Amino acid sequence: MTRNQRGKLLIFALGGLDEIGKNMYVVQYGNDIVVIDSGLMFPEEEMLGIDIVIPDITYLIENQDKVRGIILTHGHEDHIGGLPYILKQIKVPIYATKLTMGLIEHKLKEAHLLNDVRRFVINNQSEISLGSLKATFFYTNHSIPDSVGVCIHTPEGAVVHTGDFKFDMTPVNGQLADMHKMAEIGKKGVLCLLSDSTNAERPGFTGSERTVGEGIKEVFRKAKQRVIVATFASNIHRIQQVVDACYIYGRKLAVVGRSMVNVVNIASELGYLHIPKDIIIEPDDINRLPAHKVAVISTGSQGESMSALNRMANASHRKVEILPGDTVIIAATPIPGNEKMIGRIVDQLFRIGADVVYSTTSHVHVSGHGSQEDLKLMLNLMKPKYFIPIHGEYRMLRAHAQLAESVGVRPENIFICDNGDTVEISGGKARYGPKIPTGKVLIDGLGVGDVGNIVLRDRKLLSQDGILVVVVTLSKTNGTILSGPDIISRGFVYVRESEQLLEDATQVVNQTMERCMKDQVSEWASLKTSIRDSLSKFLYERTRRRPMILPIIMEV
Amino acid sequence: MTRNQRGKLLIFALGGLDEIGKNMYVVQYGNDIVVIDSGLMFPEEEMLGIDIVIPDITYLIENQDKVRGIILTHGHEDHIGGLPYILKQIKVPIYATKLTMGLIEHKLKEAHLLNDVRRFVINNQSEISLGSLKATFFYTNHSIPDSVGVCIHTPEGAVVHTGDFKFDMTPVNGQLADMHKMAEIGKKGVLCLLSDSTNAERPGFTGSERTVGEGIKEVFRKAKQRVIVATFASNIHRIQQVVDACYIYGRKLAVVGRSMVNVVNIASELGYLHIPKDIIIEPDDINRLPAHKVAVISTGSQGESMSALNRMANASHRKVEILPGDTVIIAATPIPGNEKMIGRIVDQLFRIGADVVYSTTSHVHVSGHGSQEDLKLMLNLMKPKYFIPIHGEYRMLRAHAQLAESVGVRPENIFICDNGDTVEISGGKARYGPKIPTGKVLIDGLGVGDVGNIVLRDRKLLSQDGILVVVVTLSKTNGTILSGPDIISRGFVYVRESEQLLEDATQVVNQTMERCMKDQVSEWASLKTSIRDSLSKFLYERTRRRPMILPIIMEV
Repeated sequence: MTRNQRGKLLIFALGGLDEIGKNMYVVQYGNDIVVIDSGLMFPEEEMLGIDIVIPDITYLIENQDKVRGIILTHGHEDHIGGLPYILKQIKVPIYATKLTMGLIEHKLKEAHLLNDVRRFVINNQSEISLGSLKATFFYTNHSIPDSVGVCIHTPEGAVVHTGDFKFDMTPVNGQLADMHKMAEIGKKGVLCLLSDSTNAERPGFTGSERTVGEGIKEVFRKAKQRVIVATFASNIHRIQQVVDACYIYGRKLAVVGRSMVNVVNIASELGYLHIPKDIIIEPDDINRLPAHKVAVISTGSQGESMSALNRMANASHRKVEILPGDTVIIAATPIPGNEKMIGRIVDQLFRIGADVVYSTTSHVHVSGHGSQEDLKLMLNLMKPKYFIPIHGEYRMLRAHAQLAESVGVRPENIFICDNGDTVEISGGKARYGPKIPTGKVLIDGLGVGDVGNIVLRDRKLLSQDGILVVVVTLSKTNGTILSGPDIISRGFVYVRESEQLLEDATQVVNQTMERCMKDQVSEWASLKTSIRDSLSKFLYERTRRRPMILPIIMEV
Repeated sequence: MTRNQRGKLLIFALGGLDEIGKNMYVVQYGNDIVVIDSGLMFPEEEMLGIDIVIPDITYLIENQDKVRGIILTHGHEDHIGGLPYILKQIKVPIYATKLTMGLIEHKLKEAHLLNDVRRFVINNQSEISLGSLKATFFYTNHSIPDSVGVCIHTPEGAVVHTGDFKFDMTPVNGQLADMHKMAEIGKKGVLCLLSDSTNAERPGFTGSERTVGEGIKEVFRKAKQRVIVATFASNIHRIQQVVDACYIYGRKLAVVGRSMVNVVNIASELGYLHIPKDIIIEPDDINRLPAHKVAVISTGSQGESMSALNRMANASHRKVEILPGDTVIIAATPIPGNEKMIGRIVDQLFRIGADVVYSTTSHVHVSGHGSQEDLKLMLNLMKPKYFIPIHGEYRMLRAHAQLAESVGVRPENIFICDNGDTVEISGGKARYGPKIPTGKVLIDGLGVGDVGNIVLRDRKLLSQDGILVVVVTLSKTNGTILSGPDIISRGFVYVRESEQLLEDATQVVNQTMERCMKDQVSEWASLKTSIRDSLSKFLYERTRRRPMILPIIMEV
């Protein structure tokens, strides 16, 4: 270890900055690297056909011998969802609280990785050594239990990463955030704070999860027939409140949707969900009970077309159908981009004759992320010298930076970074360091990294105006046409209604080929280009469309 | 005319129910048909490559001799945008207020239809005869001036169509809605009211447009450098308020964006926009003036990638570039589905160093549609016997129906219809009548109706996993392979990184063909099916993807 390496602290993100998702932050001191979170991101609209996106971890692979561990702050997909892919590439121990670890183990089991990974369960009393670094933890409030913030104690000073958080003064499970511990950390001195910016544009405090429970109980009280609640599977506090409402109003509860069943099982086993005896029934038993004695909790609160809620609403669920007079609570707000899908399912439910309680017209959701006043409270507890806003798109990071300034962090001590930007702290002084290569790794099916810009550009082109394949067989001996040109199209026009157009197009190809032969064009590449150009021009003039054109020349 | 036809009133929609857009309502009495509005709709996400959607007007074409006229309530695309397509199919006079007609004429000119269409300008004093029907008009408040509601006087009674509306008690142009006239119509008796449901889920009154002007002035007052305002081109009241702010704070105004220039020209010419002398400058002159003396009004408030705002933010606009220190006001709220695009442009503007004033953090927009209290006021003024909520998705129509009930319309007199559902009123009694065929006509480029479900399904498939074309040339004489099989893929995988996969795939095709030949399969169709099936299975196993597979057999 060189002197220089020993004395330098590097902080950077491989994911999570200027975006929502694939969170992955790195704290490095000399030869010791600690990673915080390994999330995935759901694809942007233009990433056609992509299933998920994870961070590019080339840096960690190249420095594998230095990576001491991955700490997971909580069990959401944007914090743990990348683990199965990442742990296939690097061998490193992981640290998480009990519930978070339960959810991770389920994932690792599915990926056949469970036995290959060293796992350590931590709590807010744990102190773990990671080379020259030490990590301690404090509980936070978030929309999933057992969420923690992390304090990495480095020779340069303490680096605090809040994870996702809000301050809930009346938490459902009675467990307040570790404010006293945060105060203590702040008192001892925080060199650098990394804090959640998701709601940095939103004024005020974020409401307590308990207020949602009150709303749910009110609906249960009035409902005449069955009550179906759709919410995020991971929101165990909310599930608990639905269980409680069932208990109070004497209803049995059926759990539907794969991820809902999964989370309810794990959370109950580990003691994070308390379900009174005899409340849970199997979906098969729903119809054996009177409608006013039944409730259902389900996935599908974002209107996802394959979700249990959507299938129940469209009478395509194997076990449960929503009927006139049932009450459906969609206990979520739309994630940006999902507004239309949710609108459609609400419409469909009303059409069936169900009563629908949803976010546009009722209070059935609060965020798990702190608003401006929560964020200022965190900043004031921690009193950091340096501040890096994390978890958010650029405008959110910027809004968070302004909040930090408003509570007294010096503007020159605030670093708004992009993924790969490093903040280098040495001798108590921070500055931007060298850039770390990073990026998006797209996963489509089993493929990791085999889909990139060219493939996506082609998918985009194909999606707009379809494709025309032009095939022709030429003689090897004299270059005359033996068969074709044949034009086959997909996604371009109704072939039956456009016979003339396609005939004319064939004519254009014929003329082009004749001209090429007269000009003695023998290079296939130039022949193909000529066909593509003339056909493209012809089709644009006739239809104002630009389908992909794929000329194929066979030689026999 | 049969007795039956004479005595029957039919009311129905060809577009605008259970959707936002392509508004087109029909009132028919005997042999007289009046059409209200001819809108377009922007395509849903799954309508890949489609430019716009218009109503199917088969019914109007089949009854062309009965159509007495089309009345346009105001100049928005979802009310007039379908006209050029519809007037190509039926010859019928159109009726609109001065500004609406100005915008329509611009469209008809572009479509080379201006001289073919009889056009009549109306105002709130007009009475027009349409066969046995008569139409009168009342002004409303909306986000474009010169908006009207229509009263169709029929032998059965008065049918009132509100158009889009809200009640603005302090309108920017001082012109209140014709409340006295509405009251008079209501007093005389309304048989059936059709009223705008867009904001029927929203409690309270919609705010006055004037409040947005106050917000804009406040930003102008504080801005140190240039101010760029992006808003909807058609919102002339808002443009007026930007002009006023320029006047007050001594700034010149440049107009950028094709539709903004167009609307500003038409509205100024017709007297709907009052621009003091010497305020307007050409975009070329912006850089000749000090930054604090300049403002720009622009399109792009929905983050559209090709809009002026986006180009200015990305330094790809020919004349204007947004610079550090400039202030940008995005005076709009996201239309559902556009949240992410707007987020991206806000991020980009902040990154440049501009100050951005936008709907998440500031009051810079009010809706043009009435909220629940506006809607109740309209219902109470009109006191209709029958009520049909229009302009909205199902949940909005339903919410509006509940409002109608709450102010005393009898539940059995409220008709929540879908496009094509008819309400038949005869002898003062209303009931559902026969269904009229209707639907969506998709327009892609110059094509009208040549893209439908099969083409869209193919585009969807292509967009997800791309395409593999398998070509093989067979001998006509003995069926042996002369050339190929060749596999060409687009939008599937990076070919360079997947050479082995594609080689293996070729092997699979070879084996399949050998098997088919051994089994003496000579039908091309079955050969193609075998290739498709075996290749599809192979690719799914190896990649978990399902590209479209297109086998092509050439014979020489």
